[in-house]
This record gives sequence, C-alpha cells and structure tokens, in this order.
Amino acid sequence: MADLKSTFLKVYAHLKEELLHDPAFEWTPDSRQWVDRMLDYNVPGGKLNRGLSVIDSYKLLMEGRELTEVEIFLASSLGWCIEWLQAYFLVLDDIMDNSHTRRGQPCWFRVPKVGLIAANDGILLRNHIPRILKKHFREKPYYVDLLDLFNEVEFQTACGQMIDLITTLEGEKDLSKYTLSLHRRIVQYKTAYYSFYLPVACALLMAGENLDNHVAVKDILVEMGTYFQVQDDYLDCFGDPETIGKIGTDIEDFKCSWLAVKALELSNEEQKKLLNENYGKADPANVEKVKALYNELNLQGVFAEYESKSYEKLITSIEAHPSKAVQAVLKSFLAKIYKRQK
Amino acid sequence: MADLKSTFLKVYAHLKEELLHDPAFEWTPDSRQWVDRMLDYNVPGGKLNRGLSVIDSYKLLMEGRELTEVEIFLASSLGWCIEWLQAYFLVLDDIMDNSHTRRGQPCWFRVPKVGLIAANDGILLRNHIPRILKKHFREKPYYVDLLDLFNEVEFQTACGQMIDLITTLEGEKDLSKYTLSLHRRIVQYKTAYYSFYLPVACALLMAGENLDNHVAVKDILVEMGTYFQVQDDYLDCFGDPETIGKIGTDIEDFKCSWLAVKALELSNEEQKKLLNENYGKADPANVEKVKALYNELNLQGVFAEYESKSYEKLITSIEAHPSKAVQAVLKSFLAKIYKRQK
Repeated sequence: MADLKSTFLKVYAHLKEELLHDPAFEWTPDSRQWVDRMLDYNVPGGKLNRGLSVIDSYKLLMEGRELTEVEIFLASSLGWCIEWLQAYFLVLDDIMDNSHTRRGQPCWFRVPKVGLIAANDGILLRNHIPRILKKHFREKPYYVDLLDLFNEVEFQTACGQMIDLITTLEGEKDLSKYTLSLHRRIVQYKTAYYSFYLPVACALLMAGENLDNHVAVKDILVEMGTYFQVQDDYLDCFGDPETIGKIGTDIEDFKCSWLAVKALELSNEEQKKLLNENYGKADPANVEKVKALYNELNLQGVFAEYESKSYEKLITSIEAHPSKAVQAVLKSFLAKIYKRQK
Repeated sequence: MADLKSTFLKVYAHLKEELLHDPAFEWTPDSRQWVDRMLDYNVPGGKLNRGLSVIDSYKLLMEGRELTEVEIFLASSLGWCIEWLQAYFLVLDDIMDNSHTRRGQPCWFRVPKVGLIAANDGILLRNHIPRILKKHFREKPYYVDLLDLFNEVEFQTACGQMIDLITTLEGEKDLSKYTLSLHRRIVQYKTAYYSFYLPVACALLMAGENLDNHVAVKDILVEMGTYFQVQDDYLDCFGDPETIGKIGTDIEDFKCSWLAVKALELSNEEQKKLLNENYGKADPANVEKVKALYNELNLQGVFAEYESKSYEKLITSIEAHPSKAVQAVLKSFLAKIYKRQK
C-alpha cells in the first residue's frame, strides 16, 4: 500500500513535468515556476483516496491479477485527473467561502502575492485535466467517453455547489429551507458524483466497459457518497477532534448538515424555536444549546440506526449486481468507509 | 444582417431552455431561476461578433450557398459556445480585476446577493459548453475534435491570463518587464486564439476539415488577433471616447499596452525615466505627461506604419492560401477590423 502510494506520487511528478513543458504554450521561466509551485501547493497534499481508488478498482475489475506498468501508469493518471479536479474545486471554494486554511496550510488565495490570481489558477488546474487525457488517452477507444465523463461530473458538481451557495445566501438564515431532500440533493451533486462515482467510472472505462450499462453501479456509488457525507456531518459534531483532525463548526456556520435536518424533522414547535434561535451563531453558548437539543433528540441513536440501515441496503444492492468483480469494487469502497471514525 | 442576428438570438433562447431542463441535474424553481437570470445577464449582451462569425465563416466555406435551417442552427450553437466561453472569462476576470462595470452594467459579482457566487456561475457557464456540444454534436464525426478544440483554446486563454496576471502583480510596478515579445505573448494567448482562431476553427470542423491541415490558417488568425489588440491598445489612448464607448485607463492601470511597449523601445534614458515616474498613476497630471511623451515619440505615426505593414503582410499570407473559400473567410475577418475606429 505504501508502495502503491509512492508509485502514484511518481506519476504525479511525471505528469507535472509534462504539463510544465506543454507545447501548446510558450513557457517562460516565471510562468513555469508559478505553475510548478501552484501544483505542488494544491494538488498532491490531500489523502489521495479518490485518486488511489481508480487503481484499486481497476485491479479488482481485472480480478486481482498483477497490472502491467502501463496499466498502473494509465490508472494513476486518471486518478490524478480526479485529484486535479478536486484541487480546482477546493481552490475556488476557498475563495468563495473566504476560508482560512486547507489541508493544514493557508488557502492558496491567502498566500502572499497570489490573492485572486488563485481564481485563474483554479481554471488552470481544471484545464490540465484535458491536457493529461489528450496526451495519454487520445488513441484509446474510450477517449471520448472519458471527456464526456469528466465534463458531466464537473457539471454536476458545479450544480451541487450552486444549490449549496444559493440556499445559504448571506442574510437569509432561514432554517425552514433545510429539508432531507435538499440535503440529499446538495450532497449527491456536490460530493458523491466526483468522489465516489468518478473513480469507479474511470476504472470501468479503462476496463473497456460502456458506462450506459452501469447505471446501477452509479446509483449505488451515489448512495454510498451520500452515506459518507452524512457520516461527515455526524463526525463534525460527535467525532473526536483529535481523531478527525479538526474542530467542527457546522453549527456556527449555519450548514445544511444532516444533523440539523434530522433535528428539524424530529422537533416539536418549542424545539424548532430553540433551533431557530441558536443555529448559525458563533457564541459557544448558542452552540451548546444546539448540541443539548441534538442529545435530547437522541441524534446519536438516530445516526446509528441510519448507519446500519444504509449498510444493509447497500450490501443488498451490491449483491444484486451480476458481476462478482464489480461487487468486489463496490464492497471494497464500502469497507473503507463503514463505521469510520475519521 | 439584422435578420441573421435575430436568428442567432432565437438560437440563444432555445439553448437556454435546454440548459434549464438539462436532465443531468434535478432542478428546483430557485436554481432554474438563478441560472436563467445569470445567463441573460452575462451571455447575450455583447457585440456577438465572435459568435456570428462562425455562421459567416461557415457560409463562405460553403462558397456562399444558402444554408439549411439545420446548418444555421448548428453553426449558431457553436457561435454561442464561444459567447458562453467569453462570458465565463469575463465573469471571472472581473472578479480578479475587481472591476466595476461591464457592457454598461455592474459586473455580475457586484449585483446584490450574487457576490462571490459569481465564481461558481463562471464555472457553470464554462460547463454549459460541453452540455451544448454533447446535446447537438455527439453523433457528428467531428465531435471529439470539437471537444479537443474548445479544451485547447480554453487552456491557452487561461495561460495568457496567467502571464498577464503575474507580470502585473500588485506592488511590483516594473516597466522593464514590458517588452514587445511579452506583449505579443499575452495578446496571442489571452485574446487571439479564442476570439479569432476559434470561430474559424469551428466553421472548418463543421465543414468536415481536419484542423491539422490548417496550421497556416491558425497562424494568420493569431496574427490578425494580435493586430486587433494593438488597435485596441491604440484606441484606448487615441480613440474617440464617444465612438469607442468608454474612457481608456490603460495608462492609469499600468497595462502592458502596445503603446507603452513601443514608447519604451523608442525612448532615450531621460524619456524612460519620465515613463517610469508617471506610468501607472491615477493622477491626471501623470497621465498627461505620459500622453505628451507618446506624442513626442510620434506613436500615432508609428501605429499608422504598423497598421499598414500588418495589413500588407496579412493580405500576402492570405493570398498564399490554396483555397479561395478559405481566403474569403480570412479576408472577411480582416475587412471587419482594418482601420476600425471602435
């Protein structure tokens, strides 16, 4: 596993060098240095789960046989395209949310002399994806499907980001908009497609599959992505800050969290009033009142129930799939996230 | 011509309706209304020259015969993709430049309740292009070439924007970086590819041509785009504000303008000193000194010389092209911009 990750990181270095010498642009030392630093700052510093899972998934689709060097390189390149996509979203999201830190360092737009140039850097990151695809996949029979896939998933992610942004418009703190169906829609579009469906879809294309025949796989992965985000919302409040590596602020930030949505659903009029008065305020006294209500409503129990129900439903759907190899891919994904504490 | 424009605008309405009902996303009334308003605000309000020229060019490639309704619709759709691309760049550029107005109205990000959501709207605009292409061109033999073309041109534009941004980094007002070769590079990448090459390349693809066989056409159009931008720089200072519809501020904004670059090239040490002391300052007294120097150096005459030389060179290159139809396309472009006053 450490080995796979170091191979994966070598592919990053290779792709970066190619991009820094892309013949479609006349480079100067300044511009090359800028992009070099921008890539190292924003692309490889995450957990790399999405990227690595393209290789894992492809190997399982090949029924576990040893992959050739070329296959590893190609699967890694697709994995890096997803990491590039993620970097692009994060750079721009941080500007929009006026965030301070990301992955333990200042957000890129807060780095001295970067500022709003970061917006164009986000665009460059996005543009690197088709450069990588063209360089390494132009002659593959599935090239056009790869382009369509990345385009569709990026579109869906931007739509998810849009509904998230327009429902939490500044100055309109209105909890009545927060419903389970809104929560599901934001999560599905903003996170699930690119984090869960995209890696497996890349592996399926490399394996020669037609994605039109895998709508069931997409549905299962989107479901899994939704479950993953509900866990995230839960851990933000009930997780151990030491373990998850940050102190959650969803309550202060008026986030459309699964916990808030569930609390609203289960509250009587008086409890709704309490939520309305205390949700989305920075004062720790307000936050404590919200947390006390979450406990009163037994949201930990409600979550445990949701978690086991989701798991059962997912396993049933997975086992209904005709291909054992595809089942293995999906079960491997599920095993990585079930009952996670971080 | 008025007729062509009204047909073109009808295609906009049609494409917009399709996007607002795109089945890849679960729309709500709120999100549909947001995108509807965002599109009307940002896409159709420009001069539409880039978009309309796809139809003109395609017609000339068909040797002037009447186009079918389907051909007009398809050429118009490609034209609108270029207008969408332009809208995407402008929305994000205005955020980065902290601009105030665009096309006679406040920049989108300055509209109340929009703010930095505009960055995601820019991304949505960009994502609409592959949605339009997939909907109407997926079955065409040139579909993958269209995707490659839009990807490459977008990449080059973002690279041009990058060199522009990093050479005019705040707090580093250093005129010595401004050379003719830097100016050419910024203009070529940031403007010429998408404004001049892209419309003709779209028409060539629709006409069944392989773009690899048209490198000469690309070179001529990039040259024409460069000439166009030099005109723009010239008119910013020497044009009639009434005619060009704005008051130029390139001197105040420390822009890497062709005039500044030429002035530096022609200046003696003393004149260089004057430029360094006065360029990029908001005070009208500083601006006047720069303009006086431009007159002292006879930049109007230098520009007139550049203009006629460029024209001759372009005509010679165009007439060397083997196809009369392609010559007609290029000459039609050139005629639209030669000696323009606005």
